[in-house]
Amino acid sequence: MAEDGRRVGTTYGFDLATAVRGGPERWSAEVDEGWTVAGRPNGGYLLALATRAGLEAAGQPHPLAVSAHFLSPAEPGPAELETRRLRAGRRLSTARVTLLQEGEARLEALVTGGRIDPEAAPGWRRAGGPPELAPVEACLPGRPQLPSGVPAKLLNHLDLRIDPATAGWFAGHPGGRLEMRGWVRFADGRDPDPLALLQAVDALPPTSFELGLAAWAPTVELTVYARGVPAPGWLACVVRGQLWQGGWFDEEAEVWDSAGRLVAQSRQLAGARAAS
Amino acid sequence: MAEDGRRVGTTYGFDLATAVRGGPERWSAEVDEGWTVAGRPNGGYLLALATRAGLEAAGQPHPLAVSAHFLSPAEPGPAELETRRLRAGRRLSTARVTLLQEGEARLEALVTGGRIDPEAAPGWRRAGGPPELAPVEACLPGRPQLPSGVPAKLLNHLDLRIDPATAGWFAGHPGGRLEMRGWVRFADGRDPDPLALLQAVDALPPTSFELGLAAWAPTVELTVYARGVPAPGWLACVVRGQLWQGGWFDEEAEVWDSAGRLVAQSRQLAGARAAS
Repeated sequence: MAEDGRRVGTTYGFDLATAVRGGPERWSAEVDEGWTVAGRPNGGYLLALATRAGLEAAGQPHPLAVSAHFLSPAEPGPAELETRRLRAGRRLSTARVTLLQEGEARLEALVTGGRIDPEAAPGWRRAGGPPELAPVEACLPGRPQLPSGVPAKLLNHLDLRIDPATAGWFAGHPGGRLEMRGWVRFADGRDPDPLALLQAVDALPPTSFELGLAAWAPTVELTVYARGVPAPGWLACVVRGQLWQGGWFDEEAEVWDSAGRLVAQSRQLAGARAAS
Repeated sequence: MAEDGRRVGTTYGFDLATAVRGGPERWSAEVDEGWTVAGRPNGGYLLALATRAGLEAAGQPHPLAVSAHFLSPAEPGPAELETRRLRAGRRLSTARVTLLQEGEARLEALVTGGRIDPEAAPGWRRAGGPPELAPVEACLPGRPQLPSGVPAKLLNHLDLRIDPATAGWFAGHPGGRLEMRGWVRFADGRDPDPLALLQAVDALPPTSFELGLAAWAPTVELTVYARGVPAPGWLACVVRGQLWQGGWFDEEAEVWDSAGRLVAQSRQLAGARAAS
């Protein structure tokens, strides 16, 4: 810590794992083996990494809207990020980011950044507040190994508590709906910020697990809106899908902070096929 | 018509207005003055135009997931589209599209295309079907002029019927919620297809009108998933938002075809400020 109490540098895992070096249009990074499930980097983690480069290129502090298409499976190890600023405004700037490994594009993202006022209050919000979610102490702690024995190293970094109502799959009795609810925070005590919301929307297990589709669910597209600066503490994550058809399903996530405010919305399209 | 009854070429307005010429990585098009509201090209129309170029570049018939960031206001007149194929697969291909006018980027989109099986049946879908919506004959026909006198030429091409429950703004009594529901079809009898769904998700007036925010609502980001090949006939569009805060609001659209199937989902982040 510096003499005035500010943290100098950082020792938090999320900041280290999403660090980018270089610029202004070409960055290098390390896709961290610790942020994987079944050896595959988590989609929300990759999106946060790409967005850090995108915000540097855009020259804005917070991600407002980030859209990514996943092009080929990423792996732990070195990565390059190519960025290009597409719009530079006072209120909004936009950058394109391509994340490559060994010359092959893994994902491409569009990042629109700006400054989110931490004091902003809703002009209007849908009544109801955070959807129904069991209290933290009644939820099941995520473990860094799935029931099948597959390693989920991501859960060494994320403290996950899953609502028992959506954890049927864990005991071999999937609930039969595209639904997953739970609480998320960083295991090392890092407070959430707008960048962390990109991780939070994709932290829970795929809702397809609750349809009994236990295979990896590769994301095709993931869009995240950060709607507020989250208060310290647990994030409540509520994820629902509408339709599984033709091998594809959708997932809509809402993230609510400890002050009961909606701080992020996301949607993704992912693949899931029945075991043959 | 050809002798076997297939239409040769097309005279439908939507196909003419979204035509692109050239390729393989540079296309020209005309942003059609007829697809505007208050002189501004409709966002869904621009997205459909960009997606046509993107699908050509991707070499796939249908848009599965399309994400666009709007960079500067487009205008009627000539446009260039730059495309780049990012991934070429059997099942999925992805292209980047930049739409430019006078050398300035108006929007950039990522288009992941594939082939949607028209016979695909849901492996699972959320119970409930299309949300509550008044029957077509009980809805208010959209007119090519807003109550304020502003021209909405788009409505010469789109036959819009607005649910009276979300048309309070039209008579000066906005309903007070981010909500808009209605029916959409092409005025010239063109049947809907997956490309047309990109237009349909952004066809209704902005939900912000129902908050009494009657000014233009510029879209920052718009993502659309086509989930099915729509049956001929009316499309039911149901649009809801969660939060208006800090000058931004979200809109989630669902589009259901005449057979009662969910055929598209979208979300957008747009700007709306209170009159000062």
